Amino acid sequence: MKILVTGFTPFGGETINPSWEAVRALDDSIAGADIIKCEIPTEFEASIDALKAAIDAHQPNAILCVGQFGGSPSIQIERVAINLRDARTPDNAGFQPHDQPVVDSAPDAFFSTIPTRQITDRLRAAGIPAALSYSAGTYVCNNLLYAALYESSQAEKGNSVRCGFIHVPYLPDQAAAAVSNAPSMSLELMVQALTIAVGTIVECR
Amino acid sequence: MKILVTGFTPFGGETINPSWEAVRALDDSIAGADIIKCEIPTEFEASIDALKAAIDAHQPNAILCVGQFGGSPSIQIERVAINLRDARTPDNAGFQPHDQPVVDSAPDAFFSTIPTRQITDRLRAAGIPAALSYSAGTYVCNNLLYAALYESSQAEKGNSVRCGFIHVPYLPDQAAAAVSNAPSMSLELMVQALTIAVGTIVECR
Amino acid sequence: MKILVTGFTPFGGETINPSWEAVRALDDSIAGADIIKCEIPTEFEASIDALKAAIDAHQPNAILCVGQFGGSPSIQIERVAINLRDARTPDNAGFQPHDQPVVDSAPDAFFSTIPTRQITDRLRAAGIPAALSYSAGTYVCNNLLYAALYESSQAEKGNSVRCGFIHVPYLPDQAAAAVSNAPSMSLELMVQALTIAVGTIVECR
Amino acid sequence: MKILVTGFTPFGGETINPSWEAVRALDDSIAGADIIKCEIPTEFEASIDALKAAIDAHQPNAILCVGQFGGSPSIQIERVAINLRDARTPDNAGFQPHDQPVVDSAPDAFFSTIPTRQITDRLRAAGIPAALSYSAGTYVCNNLLYAALYESSQAEKGNSVRCGFIHVPYLPDQAAAAVSNAPSMSLELMVQALTIAVGTIVECR
Repeated sequence: MKILVTGFTPFGGETINPSWEAVRALDDSIAGADIIKCEIPTEFEASIDALKAAIDAHQPNAILCVGQFGGSPSIQIERVAINLRDARTPDNAGFQPHDQPVVDSAPDAFFSTIPTRQITDRLRAAGIPAALSYSAGTYVCNNLLYAALYESSQAEKGNSVRCGFIHVPYLPDQAAAAVSNAPSMSLELMVQALTIAVGTIVECR
Repeated sequence: MKILVTGFTPFGGETINPSWEAVRALDDSIAGADIIKCEIPTEFEASIDALKAAIDAHQPNAILCVGQFGGSPSIQIERVAINLRDARTPDNAGFQPHDQPVVDSAPDAFFSTIPTRQITDRLRAAGIPAALSYSAGTYVCNNLLYAALYESSQAEKGNSVRCGFIHVPYLPDQAAAAVSNAPSMSLELMVQALTIAVGTIVECR
Repeated sequence: MKILVTGFTPFGGETINPSWEAVRALDDSIAGADIIKCEIPTEFEASIDALKAAIDAHQPNAILCVGQFGGSPSIQIERVAINLRDARTPDNAGFQPHDQPVVDSAPDAFFSTIPTRQITDRLRAAGIPAALSYSAGTYVCNNLLYAALYESSQAEKGNSVRCGFIHVPYLPDQAAAAVSNAPSMSLELMVQALTIAVGTIVECR
Repeated sequence: MKILVTGFTPFGGETINPSWEAVRALDDSIAGADIIKCEIPTEFEASIDALKAAIDAHQPNAILCVGQFGGSPSIQIERVAINLRDARTPDNAGFQPHDQPVVDSAPDAFFSTIPTRQITDRLRAAGIPAALSYSAGTYVCNNLLYAALYESSQAEKGNSVRCGFIHVPYLPDQAAAAVSNAPSMSLELMVQALTIAVGTIVECR
């Protein structure tokens, strides 16, 4: 079994992105599955291209995308992606769409197809602050999850790949540098959280 | 040089108090100073008695009290203690004062006498989320800092002991168990923060 | 033109629901459209029945449902409803579904079909705190919007009814009675907001 | 009986200050007391001069200063002022003090001398969101309350004037114009709150 786990490049003036820092620190094998790690550009279009290229290259059985949610106090397990792009700030390519679809003439939304409830329960049982989330926003994170779920929905029956998205908080040094009093989480705990999430994806089909 | 560092016993239904967990994990010597560690009961009266007993026994040059501030996203360095007790819930002895002074006929407030600004700056420079705070509340934490500063203010000239207070957030497993989506901080980061704070107290007179 | 505007009955221990208080105070005619007002029970099943009955009875051209979002500081204009029921507390009929669909074998979500962006812009231009929202939760509010959009999607081409949902904050006296320090909004401002929203639905097709 | 009630000039890029809007709308007589209204510049030094001039001119029996606390969801009744000036942004005169006292060699803090608990209780009983506050910040608001209380403390025995401070939230149109989703309160409710507060000061000696 192969799981593709992606993180994003830094954006919004930050020099690191905790999502990629946590993903790159994962073990290469979790719960018996091979872990393929991929850093994705924080750009609406290029992120989708990069994901498709990684899927083509590795043919994973499941995909877990990870992104930064600055201001979140906990791990957020996203349940749904919507067919909407609306950016308050330009992406890393300078593109700032307003009220546009991710995919033309496609469904309004897709539910995540990983076991979001079980992941959340296991994280909390392990002492890791975590919550289900019903909005992944309208920026590049939601865009990537929607694209992954749309691609999977187009696959031939039986070939669909399970896809999900997890948002991680700021790292402590990002929060320390911020003007506002933002919450944060240690890298160690993020890595532990993603390891549990991947293990749950492997075990709960 | 001797620094007395105190943490509190658990309260409010919690089974641990991160303040004492962090204090007990400190090195016995920081920046050349001997560290005396003391667990203080979360009770208005007994906390003051325990502090006075520790002062009598150890004659410290400075005192750093540490307490839990559930819901805080960062280390809070308290600048002021007020002469007021007002408890929304009973303390661990079942005592629930309303609008009473800590010390009768004493000043309305005392500023902390440790280098709060330098501690905050050093913590943030070290990548640890931290902020100055101008209210330590009206519960046992404020009560203990007020009592420490009042005692010190009564000392003979030249003998006064510097006193301060630091609030730490929930530990991750406390936040994970909470119904609400509370922020948290790892024990490792708390210990690092207190080590920097004590070092700053030693170095900045 | 006829617009059906609904509010909910009180729930969660409250004695009033600001959504119905604001709806019942609307003028009977706004921007030339007749306003049909309907109080809907805060129950997963009965709310849908009540909505269908009102649609049958009045054959409205558009539907605006309004609900309470305690804790919100502003008017929230919902953009999407998801096919999911998950209740932290029982509804007024004692029903507490977990991870169930609103409608079996139906799409994962529908976008609202009222002009959400224009409503938000007009509200803010009128000095009323307002924001687009991308999650109406998983309780009775989301349930009602999903059901309305699903029904409309089943209509014959050209007969579909535009449907939307607006969340209003607590009224001031609800916030005053709450233990926590919750934000609120005056009834007058809510009524003004709903009047602008309905006018925008009438004018922006 | 004469009560001096002050509000502040706009600052921080705002064109109005809700504190003065609410104060200027008060009746000229409340609970049998004459109400003297005074707009105070949002400047560390000039605010104190203006307050002293108003005291000299009107010889009030009590003083209630009112200020804006953008981001607060409720009326905040301040219990304490500290002898500290620390400004994150310059005041309206371009002065930006850091860690300086309001009055040299004066006490660290003074408690407000108006009946803060009764005011809070009466406001909540009247359905107005309100809370006691234990920090008025370190900007011009705290500065003015400290100066008022210090002046009063210097008066001959029996001649001291009761002084207090109330923070009000943003007005709705300020919140609507803000980028963030800030809470607000209607002017009518603020005026009602200040009327109750002044009445309580008159009646509870």
